[in-house]
Amino acid sequence: MQIRPIGVIHSPFNNIAEMPIQPSGAQGVAGKIEIDSDLVEGLKDLEGFSHIIVLYQFHQVTRTELSVTPFLDATAHGIFATRAPTRPNPIGLSVLALKSISANVLNVGNVDILDGTPLLDIKPYVPEFDHPAEVRIGWLQKSPQGSQTKRSDERFA
Amino acid sequence: MQIRPIGVIHSPFNNIAEMPIQPSGAQGVAGKIEIDSDLVEGLKDLEGFSHIIVLYQFHQVTRTELSVTPFLDATAHGIFATRAPTRPNPIGLSVLALKSISANVLNVGNVDILDGTPLLDIKPYVPEFDHPAEVRIGWLQKSPQGSQTKRSDERFA
Repeated sequence: MQIRPIGVIHSPFNNIAEMPIQPSGAQGVAGKIEIDSDLVEGLKDLEGFSHIIVLYQFHQVTRTELSVTPFLDATAHGIFATRAPTRPNPIGLSVLALKSISANVLNVGNVDILDGTPLLDIKPYVPEFDHPAEVRIGWLQKSPQGSQTKRSDERFA
Repeated sequence: MQIRPIGVIHSPFNNIAEMPIQPSGAQGVAGKIEIDSDLVEGLKDLEGFSHIIVLYQFHQVTRTELSVTPFLDATAHGIFATRAPTRPNPIGLSVLALKSISANVLNVGNVDILDGTPLLDIKPYVPEFDHPAEVRIGWLQKSPQGSQTKRSDERFA
């Protein structure tokens, strides 16, 4: 399957090291999503949603690792049990706050994404679709709030 | 960017018509995700999570439409303000219940996905990462619960 970038994500983060590792650690961090100008028609009515699901390419990742030690633990876990970028298909997902839209530029908040990241898709975030009621979070239950303060390093670069 | 299927999703739905349109309309619908056997190492510790984010290819969609009339409204909206499949990059996203894992097979619930759909990625669902607190849902506020009963038709096939 061939997929193509449909835009680019701009953020204050030029280096993988010291980035927030999730939107929960990027409160107040503003960024911009610039979508290809021939796709502007597809943004109609998106501004009614406070949050968007953004899919993007982990473009600085060049390898696959099936077993990884993520930022929030000292133990290795299977890649599919983590959000680490060294996935067989290096697609990242962040739920971002949508502040405003001006032509082909979306102003977004809680950005935990590297500057220059290729955008793949935008979907409206809908709790009725995306938020199950009773949730268990496996190994992450030891430190779910760690994502608010933990910063990245270059282990996956 | 070239991405490759890493497995296949099995469900009771052989036709696009009459499918549930979201996991919220597929309560109790069981399915299986068969992941390539050389990727089993990547599933380690995933069973601790009650829900997974599944990315997949809308493989029966052959066109892009920037303006669509979704199942839950009678009005056209921009494709990025909907979850409709005719997206520039036809990647689907569902949050599924994870029941159990046996070798390379995941038993999942709330499946709103067509049988035979190519799997692209599995991520653990983590409310701390994926569930913002205060949410507005734009045009969908008229009928968020419609996804529980509304069935699909072939408009996007």
